[in-house]
Parts: sequence; structure tokens; C-alpha cells
Amino acid sequence: MLTAAELEQIIVVLVAARNPLNIGAAARAMSNFGFPRLRVVNRYQLAFREAQSAVGAAELLHEAVEYANLSEAVADCSLVVGTTAVGSRQIEQPVHRLEAGSRLIRDHIGSGGMAALLFGSEKRGLSNNDLGYCHWLMRIPTRPEHISMNLGQAVAVCLYELVRTDAPLAAGASSSKEVAQATGAELARLEQALLEALHASGYVKPGAEAATEERTRRLIRRLQLNAEDAETWTGMLSKMFRTNR
Amino acid sequence: MLTAAELEQIIVVLVAARNPLNIGAAARAMSNFGFPRLRVVNRYQLAFREAQSAVGAAELLHEAVEYANLSEAVADCSLVVGTTAVGSRQIEQPVHRLEAGSRLIRDHIGSGGMAALLFGSEKRGLSNNDLGYCHWLMRIPTRPEHISMNLGQAVAVCLYELVRTDAPLAAGASSSKEVAQATGAELARLEQALLEALHASGYVKPGAEAATEERTRRLIRRLQLNAEDAETWTGMLSKMFRTNR
Repeated sequence: MLTAAELEQIIVVLVAARNPLNIGAAARAMSNFGFPRLRVVNRYQLAFREAQSAVGAAELLHEAVEYANLSEAVADCSLVVGTTAVGSRQIEQPVHRLEAGSRLIRDHIGSGGMAALLFGSEKRGLSNNDLGYCHWLMRIPTRPEHISMNLGQAVAVCLYELVRTDAPLAAGASSSKEVAQATGAELARLEQALLEALHASGYVKPGAEAATEERTRRLIRRLQLNAEDAETWTGMLSKMFRTNR
Repeated sequence: MLTAAELEQIIVVLVAARNPLNIGAAARAMSNFGFPRLRVVNRYQLAFREAQSAVGAAELLHEAVEYANLSEAVADCSLVVGTTAVGSRQIEQPVHRLEAGSRLIRDHIGSGGMAALLFGSEKRGLSNNDLGYCHWLMRIPTRPEHISMNLGQAVAVCLYELVRTDAPLAAGASSSKEVAQATGAELARLEQALLEALHASGYVKPGAEAATEERTRRLIRRLQLNAEDAETWTGMLSKMFRTNR
């Protein structure tokens, strides 16, 4: 979990992005995951200004800062990380997978530093000159046969990795309609209703009463019913039993 | 790490997506992360066919299967998971965060079952009727003030979470140009060259020799130089010393 202050310590830098749709998509993902600071290094001023209609990210784009070159854009950052697909290019810096790289970035901002996360242009990614400003590089674990990601999707995936947590399942689960799990007594009533209905319908073979009862009990427990649903089922089965008598 | 067979057990189902660009973006992310099976439930046949130009995902889109309704699209799946932003809507199913939900999906396919991952339309997400087919729901941890993600970005983030691993840093790091770290002897030569240059330039104050030497030693170790770079620096500093003499 990153704090609001930590989210401000990570700056997304788009270098030479040309498609306004992609700049808008990057801004939207930043807004979704709570990263407020966008910087754009771009000779093509038009593209940046056209992107301002991105869904829900108008304010973020409005506050984005434009730079004429990468050196100025990362001047206040003590860690500069380049994202790259690492194709056939000669790379001199260490390359970390996104999962490991994110841990390094979180460590860095945890100790108070500013970090820049660089994304290159849609066609060519970051140039060799851009890579010279990077302390190390990070790659998204795409498959070797198709390494090149869409810019907006790459930004979304990287920012998601930075905010994700390994919350245990129980803590992560929630339901807007809070209903308690059925108690043993409620399940026993359901079981009784089911067995009566099965007997009345001739489902239970003579001599198999005990086996059927045990099977039924397990069957019901596996449903993991809440109290309301258990009552509904009990009512339905009671009705069937009375009808079949 | 999912195996090729496991990647085929997870089916992405786009329900009522209307924008061909979004369908194409979803297909591209599937291709990036290695998920081959796309199903489309759509009244708007045109949108789907128009998407076939997505970068690198033409084959995947060609092999996508179209269904008239959701029931048929998930008929062979023993787990159906809906993705949702969980706004003000009344939700009756359990909702898991993506991190925890992905673990459940991996468990399911690990035991041999097929799983469908449902994404709704750009405007409204999955309908209440669609949600009725889901065993449980999954939400991407976006911030409450801006929960709604772009469709292609949501697909990319979910699929990334399914393939990500907690690989340790060392295993994840690589460099295409393997150069050994500088040895102690190489660093000692560099240190010597630096100190000589500092003395020659008058940088070292009388009486501060020992302190400067110690500071310099630490300074150099923090650079974590490789052998080649250490030699280059030593050469440069030796040159400066000779110039300053």
C-alpha cells in the first residue's frame, strides 16, 4: 500500500509519445491507481494538448508538465527507471522484471527519494540516448513472441504492480450485502427438510438410509450457504415434502 | 508461471464490447501475456470484425469465437468470474481483489477446470443479468474516486496478475552485456589514482589525509562498478594526475 505522499514521489514520464489517445490512456491509468504526477517530453506539442479529453483524467492532464528534454524532466529524481521490451537491442544496464523492479522502486521512495518511471514512444520505445539517463531498466513479463505492448496498457500494468498488495483472501473479500453464514442449526433444519423430501419422493433406496443421510450432509456443507439462503432452501424443500406426502 | 495448457484453460469473454479499438486492445494484451482463447458475446457483429487489425493479435482475433448469449459462451467453464468496478450497485456475490481472485483462478485451473473471465461493455460494465452467471466477482484495486478503467487496460492488468511471479530479484535481473564486477584490486588502483589526482589538485587539506582516504574508499565502493568501467575511470584519473603534476 503506497501512501498519498509516496504516490507523489513516483513520476510518470512519457518520452516522445505521439498518439493523443495513448497519452490520454496513460493519464487515465495514473488516475485509476492514484499517481498524480505526469511529465511529458515531447517535440509534438499538439499531441499532448489533444489528449486532454481522457475519461476522468482531465485534471491530471491539466497539471502535467511539459519538458523540452529528458535531462530536465528527471533533474529532481534520484532514481530513473526505463521501461523497455528488450528486443534485439544491446542493453548495458541491469534489466529487472517488473515484479522485482517494483520492489526496488518502493524501497527507494520509502527512503524518501523521488523516482521517475520512463515510457518511450509507441513505435520505438526509449531511444539509446534516453536509456543513458536510466539507473536500470524494467521489463513487463510478456512472452518472447510478442513483447511489444500498447503504451497505455504498459503504463496501467506497471502502476498496478506498484500498488498491488498480497492481501490474504479473507481480507480481500467483501460483499455489499452482508449476510451471516448459516449456523449449524440452520443447516440441520435444511438437512432435515431435504431428507424428508427425498424419502417422500422415493429417492432413498431401502437399506441406504444412513449412506444417503451422510452424503446429504456433506452436500449441504459444501454449498457454504448464508443464513437467508439456507432458510429459503429449507422453505422450498419443506414445501416439496408436504406436496409429495 | 502458467503452462501453455493452463493458459488455454482461461478464456477471456468480452460481453457487449462496442468499440473495435478496445476489442483489439484486449486481444493484444492476451497475445502479450500468452492467453490464446477469446470469446465475444455481441449483438454488434461489426465492431468485432473491425477489430481484426490489432497489432500482433490478428491470429488470436481470427480464432476468437462469437456467441449470441453469455450462457452458451461459458457452457464449458466450471468457474465464471466477473470483473466489476463495484460502484453503487447492489452486489450479491463475493467480491475479491484481483490479487486474491487470481490465486483462486490459478487453483481452479491447476485442478483441471476451465475458467471464464468476463469483461463488460465500456459504458456499463457487466449487466445484472451477466453477473448472475458468475461464481464470484473480481475487482482491480483502483482508487474509490476513479474506479472505472479502460477496457483494454483492465484486461491487460488482470492477465498480468495471472502470469506474474514473485521471482527473487537476482533471478529476475539480467544484462545482455555480461561484465564482471570490479575486483578489490581494480578498485584499489582506482582509489590510488583518485587520491593522487586529489592531492595533486590541492583538494586534500593538510592534516585531513586519512579522513579523505577513508571517505574516498567508501565513495568508490558505492559506485558498484564493473571491471571495464573501473579501468576506464582509473585511466581518466591517472591522466588528470599527470596533468596536474
